[in-house]
Amino acid sequence: MRAFTSQPRDSVAALGETRLIESIRRWLGSASPPAPFGIGDDCAVLPANRRRQLVTTDPVIHGRHFDDSVPARAVGAKLLKRNLSDLAAMGARPTAAVVSLALDRRVSVRWLEQFHRGLAAAARRFSVPIVGGDVSQSDGFLGAFLTLFGEAAGPRIVLRSGARAGDWIYVTGTLGGSLLGHHWRFIPRLAEGEWLARRVEVRALMDVSDGLAKDLLALTPQGTRPAIAPAAVPISAAARRRARDTGRTPLHHALADGEDYELAVVVGRRAGRAAFERAWRRRFPRLRLTCLGRFVSTDKIPAGSVDLSRFKGYEHLR
Amino acid sequence: MRAFTSQPRDSVAALGETRLIESIRRWLGSASPPAPFGIGDDCAVLPANRRRQLVTTDPVIHGRHFDDSVPARAVGAKLLKRNLSDLAAMGARPTAAVVSLALDRRVSVRWLEQFHRGLAAAARRFSVPIVGGDVSQSDGFLGAFLTLFGEAAGPRIVLRSGARAGDWIYVTGTLGGSLLGHHWRFIPRLAEGEWLARRVEVRALMDVSDGLAKDLLALTPQGTRPAIAPAAVPISAAARRRARDTGRTPLHHALADGEDYELAVVVGRRAGRAAFERAWRRRFPRLRLTCLGRFVSTDKIPAGSVDLSRFKGYEHLR
Repeated sequence: MRAFTSQPRDSVAALGETRLIESIRRWLGSASPPAPFGIGDDCAVLPANRRRQLVTTDPVIHGRHFDDSVPARAVGAKLLKRNLSDLAAMGARPTAAVVSLALDRRVSVRWLEQFHRGLAAAARRFSVPIVGGDVSQSDGFLGAFLTLFGEAAGPRIVLRSGARAGDWIYVTGTLGGSLLGHHWRFIPRLAEGEWLARRVEVRALMDVSDGLAKDLLALTPQGTRPAIAPAAVPISAAARRRARDTGRTPLHHALADGEDYELAVVVGRRAGRAAFERAWRRRFPRLRLTCLGRFVSTDKIPAGSVDLSRFKGYEHLR
Repeated sequence: MRAFTSQPRDSVAALGETRLIESIRRWLGSASPPAPFGIGDDCAVLPANRRRQLVTTDPVIHGRHFDDSVPARAVGAKLLKRNLSDLAAMGARPTAAVVSLALDRRVSVRWLEQFHRGLAAAARRFSVPIVGGDVSQSDGFLGAFLTLFGEAAGPRIVLRSGARAGDWIYVTGTLGGSLLGHHWRFIPRLAEGEWLARRVEVRALMDVSDGLAKDLLALTPQGTRPAIAPAAVPISAAARRRARDTGRTPLHHALADGEDYELAVVVGRRAGRAAFERAWRRRFPRLRLTCLGRFVSTDKIPAGSVDLSRFKGYEHLR
């Protein structure tokens, strides 16, 4: 469905602000609680909560994170899911979200309805009330900016900074080729993140959103580099399909495409890896967990390791 | 200062994402705590807090909420201050903020530095750590979307929905003509909102951001209308100056311009108004508090009252 309409009567400008906000409340339905716990006052009020709170923010922008080939409902779901992936990456679960819209006056009301119905369906699926938001006018631009709150799901949250030399590097699922559909079809790894945060073996965690080659830099302890054998990388079928069209290698797509929304996991070097892997398979029998290698001293990288610096990953400003 | 540069080497695209994020951390300085309580992990972590949490979100968009005539530092400050005004309107105080940027590649790095230095100065002044954010690329668009968290400052928060027939309507400061500079020079009424929320006389509260004529609708109890004598409206000097240029009346500008960022206050009909007004003058001797009139039954509006439906207020989608 096209996000911009050439028919002025089908546009958000024809609907007007007041009726648009009423429509958004209707489209969100039970995903949006009544004021003051939802839309309708100067601020939304969140219930008191004794756990540590987490917050993350990510948008979807037309022409950047989606285009007219992606169903509008899927765009709404993607907006929430990409933020959920950030919570999953710390072992947290969601508590509430707010959405700020920037709408060109020619944005299609039908598109916006489907967008909100997709957002609402994802919000119900993952139990996230949409508690507030804002609508602003923009010229030639369509974007939705979501801020998501969460709380630690268990006794601890897992940071990116816990890895040490010798620790093992794992990744969930398969990587690459997300442009062929995974970038909006993915399911955020919330259950996996929560489980991983409860395992003492796990020292650090992050989600893979800009490509593993780029994202692993954030986990790598000083004085080390990831030693990864090319054959260890779990390459997706989509990465292989992409490679046929682009002339690049499937490995390149797996490491540099981005929008995998998988979890990169660091397991302590002295941990019982076999027990950890068995426990994973029992709990998540259908999701692959692959050991890629480990962090080793910069001067001890084995010959034949992947040179991650050759892959640039997703660059947000080009 | 111009927000967009024609010199590619001065643009955010030339700086690149990684160095831009480093720069933002430097520009924010002490306004941005280290990870995990600030920028640098998948989510920001907020300290545990037993009070009820509040959340609000408002952006600044180039060509909409500011243009090149507004100093870049003032734009950054305005972004935070307009959200603070929403917290003030419930008697709350800020605890943390996240900022999501959508940047055209031609946005000037110098402009962005000044924007962040202005944001950081306001964040320090109002004690709001900037704990996280996001940078996305956009085409032909520059916007910054802030989400602000707060907590009740006292034993209660004040909603918009508390007014009843017969209650009195007050407003702080003077109204209208914000385009002449008030829209970015204003000071959010945080101390006033906190004080008002502690007064038992106060039944409802909101901030005046779209013009009093439009915003009062949200406070008006069913079956009533605001009965306001034209002479009671505190018209700003800027509204009078604007009227000379536009041919409209100063009253029109006072009621319909928007971006006043003053507080509209509803005081119970049986409250001791004289004591309330005296207490206000003692606490805020330099800020005017004006009684505009009261909410009366729709069939008992006195002749000569302002017909608010004649004034449209700020419409966000035109």
